[in-house]
Amino acid sequence: MSDIMIGRVALIGIGLIGSSLARALRRDHPETEIIACARRAETLAAVQRLGIADAMTHDPAQAAAGADLVVIATPLSAYAEIGERIAPMLKDGAILTDVGSVKQAVIRDLQPNVPSGVHLVPGHPVAGTEHSGPESGFAELFRDRWCILTPSPETPPEPVAAVGGMWQGFGMRVVTMSADHHDKVLAMTSHLPHLIAYTIVGTATNLEESLKSEVIEFSASGFRDFTRIAASDPVMWRDIFLNNREAVLEIVQRFTEDLTALQRAIRWGEGDKLQELFTRTRAIRRSIIEATQA
Amino acid sequence: MSDIMIGRVALIGIGLIGSSLARALRRDHPETEIIACARRAETLAAVQRLGIADAMTHDPAQAAAGADLVVIATPLSAYAEIGERIAPMLKDGAILTDVGSVKQAVIRDLQPNVPSGVHLVPGHPVAGTEHSGPESGFAELFRDRWCILTPSPETPPEPVAAVGGMWQGFGMRVVTMSADHHDKVLAMTSHLPHLIAYTIVGTATNLEESLKSEVIEFSASGFRDFTRIAASDPVMWRDIFLNNREAVLEIVQRFTEDLTALQRAIRWGEGDKLQELFTRTRAIRRSIIEATQA
Repeated sequence: MSDIMIGRVALIGIGLIGSSLARALRRDHPETEIIACARRAETLAAVQRLGIADAMTHDPAQAAAGADLVVIATPLSAYAEIGERIAPMLKDGAILTDVGSVKQAVIRDLQPNVPSGVHLVPGHPVAGTEHSGPESGFAELFRDRWCILTPSPETPPEPVAAVGGMWQGFGMRVVTMSADHHDKVLAMTSHLPHLIAYTIVGTATNLEESLKSEVIEFSASGFRDFTRIAASDPVMWRDIFLNNREAVLEIVQRFTEDLTALQRAIRWGEGDKLQELFTRTRAIRRSIIEATQA
Repeated sequence: MSDIMIGRVALIGIGLIGSSLARALRRDHPETEIIACARRAETLAAVQRLGIADAMTHDPAQAAAGADLVVIATPLSAYAEIGERIAPMLKDGAILTDVGSVKQAVIRDLQPNVPSGVHLVPGHPVAGTEHSGPESGFAELFRDRWCILTPSPETPPEPVAAVGGMWQGFGMRVVTMSADHHDKVLAMTSHLPHLIAYTIVGTATNLEESLKSEVIEFSASGFRDFTRIAASDPVMWRDIFLNNREAVLEIVQRFTEDLTALQRAIRWGEGDKLQELFTRTRAIRRSIIEATQA
């Protein structure tokens, strides 16, 4: 990790990711001063109880003042306002990064207010659980997961290396790509699966009562996995869908076409079509296991 | 387990479930004689290597001859022919059961050929992994999972208790319901989730090459879970969809309507609708955890 990090870090938003980052910083960089910023008093009370920050505030501007690194880890809908409020307080040479699951919208919301001399390095540690809030964080959350950075081509290499080095130090594999590409890849690998999981669990809640109670009782592995995904933070996911709208709608459209084709094959008893697809999807699983992601 | 079981068991089809059953029988009932029947020579070679049967045959009729319990554990499309072939060989008082994931179709295919004096007890041990074949079985597969039996109201209680007792002995929680109800519950909890998982992984395979390789590389938890489900046995699942057509099409239709509503909410930026659903789905997860299924 670059020297620039061993100073003061402002964590704006301290839920699952923010508090996991605080724990990892505490563990590996005890000399780093951590300022935690949250809107709600109970969140800061939890942070205090957990002892994962040196100072706490409700005011993003106060948190950002004098920080070497500012990390925004709130739902995406809060970014624009936070960006406006912290901008005047950011010190020259500071790095501004984030952990949001969408990157084009982050740049749209933050870049206009970033003062010259401050480096914006949008980031996405692809890690999480279905739990939320500061109590659910843990330092090992980032181990062996990907972290995607989407700096603009104009960003100097040093701040990008500093942010990447921090995540790498916590066990992440760091890659850089364009924000546009990130948003398309994540629409497929994360946003669509979550939308589908939310939908299917919603479909189950709308069943007649007798069927619904047995669905809960006998939930087999497929459905149970979906309910875990569909237990993820509602506000965070609302914001992801609204802020990655184009990419998500495009991939939902493709998915719906593919599902309609399968539906039709089932209706008309076209077993060969089903078997052919089901054989093809096995191969993708194999590729993923080979990519040591499974 | 009732005494009726401590005799000869014919396992027709010896993949993941059949071989797991053979292992569990071997472990808990070493005195039971196991006859394994499979169509393919390599399957029987594996059975021999694994030492999980006392005798082996390619002929279902030969396997069923003199058996106290016959368990069909093949893909559903093989049932009708197997039923026809074994019918003349079933001894008086024998129990015929199965492990298929659809139950109305099983009764449709088997019942007409069941001789009087033979008891059909359709069964569904709701257990499995994404792996298939005799090598992937293990005796503990059934532990703490549900087993659903769907005997007709005319079936005497003893054979139902015998089959239920066997599965219970292997750690399963056994319940009885109508075949129609079973098929509706499983359409929601298992068949739709599998169809969705196959679809979404199929959608990913159709992406432009550059995007596809990164989807594989960065597959986040949502998508990775789906690929595991979509690696399940293609023939088995083809047969499930074709044989539970009405219930699956009905639930796919509901799902599609719900997805379309979400898609529309994303397009028009209706964040409240999204958040409301995502909050509701969390509650279902909680119910499932409370039902100690998670």
